[in-house]
Amino acid sequence: MKTSSFEKEINVLRNDIDEVDSQLVKLLAKRRKITTNVGKLKSAAGMPIYVPEREAALLRKHRENAENAGLSADLIEDILRRLMRDSYISQDANGYRCVNTACKKIVIVGGAGQLGKIFVDLFTRSEYKVSILEENDWSRSHEILADVSVVIVAVPIRWTSSIIQKLNNLPDDCILADITSIKEKPLYEMMKVHAGPVVGLHPMFGPDISNLIKQTIIVCDGRLSNKYCWLLEQFQVWGAKTYSVEANSHDKAMSMVQVMRHFSTIAYGYHLMTEGANLSQLVEMSSPIYRLELIMVGRLFAQNPILYSDIIFANPDNISMMKRFALRFLELLKDVEQGDKDAFVEMFKQVSNWFGNYANDFLKESKAMLLKADDLKSN
Amino acid sequence: MKTSSFEKEINVLRNDIDEVDSQLVKLLAKRRKITTNVGKLKSAAGMPIYVPEREAALLRKHRENAENAGLSADLIEDILRRLMRDSYISQDANGYRCVNTACKKIVIVGGAGQLGKIFVDLFTRSEYKVSILEENDWSRSHEILADVSVVIVAVPIRWTSSIIQKLNNLPDDCILADITSIKEKPLYEMMKVHAGPVVGLHPMFGPDISNLIKQTIIVCDGRLSNKYCWLLEQFQVWGAKTYSVEANSHDKAMSMVQVMRHFSTIAYGYHLMTEGANLSQLVEMSSPIYRLELIMVGRLFAQNPILYSDIIFANPDNISMMKRFALRFLELLKDVEQGDKDAFVEMFKQVSNWFGNYANDFLKESKAMLLKADDLKSN
Repeated sequence: MKTSSFEKEINVLRNDIDEVDSQLVKLLAKRRKITTNVGKLKSAAGMPIYVPEREAALLRKHRENAENAGLSADLIEDILRRLMRDSYISQDANGYRCVNTACKKIVIVGGAGQLGKIFVDLFTRSEYKVSILEENDWSRSHEILADVSVVIVAVPIRWTSSIIQKLNNLPDDCILADITSIKEKPLYEMMKVHAGPVVGLHPMFGPDISNLIKQTIIVCDGRLSNKYCWLLEQFQVWGAKTYSVEANSHDKAMSMVQVMRHFSTIAYGYHLMTEGANLSQLVEMSSPIYRLELIMVGRLFAQNPILYSDIIFANPDNISMMKRFALRFLELLKDVEQGDKDAFVEMFKQVSNWFGNYANDFLKESKAMLLKADDLKSN
Repeated sequence: MKTSSFEKEINVLRNDIDEVDSQLVKLLAKRRKITTNVGKLKSAAGMPIYVPEREAALLRKHRENAENAGLSADLIEDILRRLMRDSYISQDANGYRCVNTACKKIVIVGGAGQLGKIFVDLFTRSEYKVSILEENDWSRSHEILADVSVVIVAVPIRWTSSIIQKLNNLPDDCILADITSIKEKPLYEMMKVHAGPVVGLHPMFGPDISNLIKQTIIVCDGRLSNKYCWLLEQFQVWGAKTYSVEANSHDKAMSMVQVMRHFSTIAYGYHLMTEGANLSQLVEMSSPIYRLELIMVGRLFAQNPILYSDIIFANPDNISMMKRFALRFLELLKDVEQGDKDAFVEMFKQVSNWFGNYANDFLKESKAMLLKADDLKSN
């Protein structure tokens, strides 16, 4: 085939693709208009945006459609999920149903902070009266806290204790809550300072999210859950999932998934630097999976060290747990030093058993993730 | 608004969405037909499937289209990238241009293995004559290796050395290559055993990939690169990116991104088990980012321990490097034990500086990844 003829033919096909893609843009704009109307309707009726069953049914139907049309079902599912994310954003632009219209006032202590802001915004758009209490407002705290129905402490972890201590004069029926990433200590302090309903919350998301749909909020009961349960229902109206757990179990779990991971990731970054690694070369050479791991390390160092040191230094119990990790690391390294592959493989199999079905589920999920990481590559 | 009226109105809108989604499926099926034809045309003309400039231009154009239609440009880019992945798969179904028609025969030692298979398939679909040499074929290796132009060693790392040793009687002009994940030792051994062109390769992907588009193959020169450069060009025709580096630098980098990460991930899994972590609770409680980290740990334990122990035990130099990591970990932990936040923050800032612009780039990339992880959630 001559190049000129190839060029001609490929240009015809490329124009066809461009035409399809332009139609695609138009179709998606049409879809967006409809979902915006769905949002308005739901907001007016006070119905939740995220309806898991509807989402699942829609995916099921169009997976089948796709297969009948000779397309990959996974392709259409991926695209619909991406469209749903967009449609949730458009629907979130409207207001939400107010679960408790009898609520007089909500005060967010630290409501100007990154995470506090999100709650201020959502409560406001659910037609609650919301006030913020920041560092400089304590002189008029009496006024701000007068007649309050809910107080949520949303300050950096190092201030949580001292702020809670100041909240010793709330109305008896006021709900006192915090959103600190540790739960046992703040909960204990809230219980001491306030006799009414108390609940500890840990929102499992950062300030980057654009809405609460599919996000998790961990709930640790203090007292009088029947008085604060409407608050959890409000979170669910926003699309969040609540998960109840004992404060102590929460802290133990977080020490392992949050504190320990943060710390060892930081240590790994420090290790790379000290070993004199060639970072740009590492990036060039990385497979999708190593790139993903490198990203998870590097991302941390773009953020505020105070954020991490506060979490890591908050609970001295974590130190011994992390020391145990380092010692286990050295213990396993001894097997390598002695060339004892059998011992290593034996340990590996034990851990595999312990992971059980999760190992396979995670492998499957990670493969889907890695394909998505590949999609992002520009060259 | 009455519920019945809400139900009526929402059902109308939901039907509209379903209609749009059905049109979407049809449009994508049409697109797939066109891209399949592009594939056939390119295959016949011997043109590469992946043309980065064309991809970039197409994205640019439709980002603009999307914005003009009141849509998010990122939405259309994400969807087009997903469609491109699919279109590459459809195009890959056709043959590839054969870069070197003078090549008489390619032998893949271990060509029945997971990674070897991929190369056998790609060479075959590029119209090369390909033979496999497996464990039981050595009695007739004389016959298989007669008149061979390229031999690629694609066996598990623990057999690489002994296999290379057997390849001491290749035609002078034959290219000898391996695809082991370490490079210095196999390269040294290939150079010793064969006087012709030698090249060490490390494909930075696993056996799960469906084509080589956007994948990286690391290249460590042995000798006579002018004789094997057509092989690298062939990889590029398949869509892969080649990256040349010294064998020693490769091994050093891999010890840190591959060996060290594997080992510490395994140690972390062992730690979780030994600490008696409640895995299902950890999963329930995880934020998208902790879930991603947990997945990256668990995925490993769904795989063959021999695979990992071979890599970890392959190079004793790695032991001292990993020991240094554990000692640094304990050293940093001392700061925490002594409550020395300043020292910790100081160290953190140093590492941030060392990461430089990568830290911000990685943060941005990880945010895009986490949104994609959210999309995958089913409830």
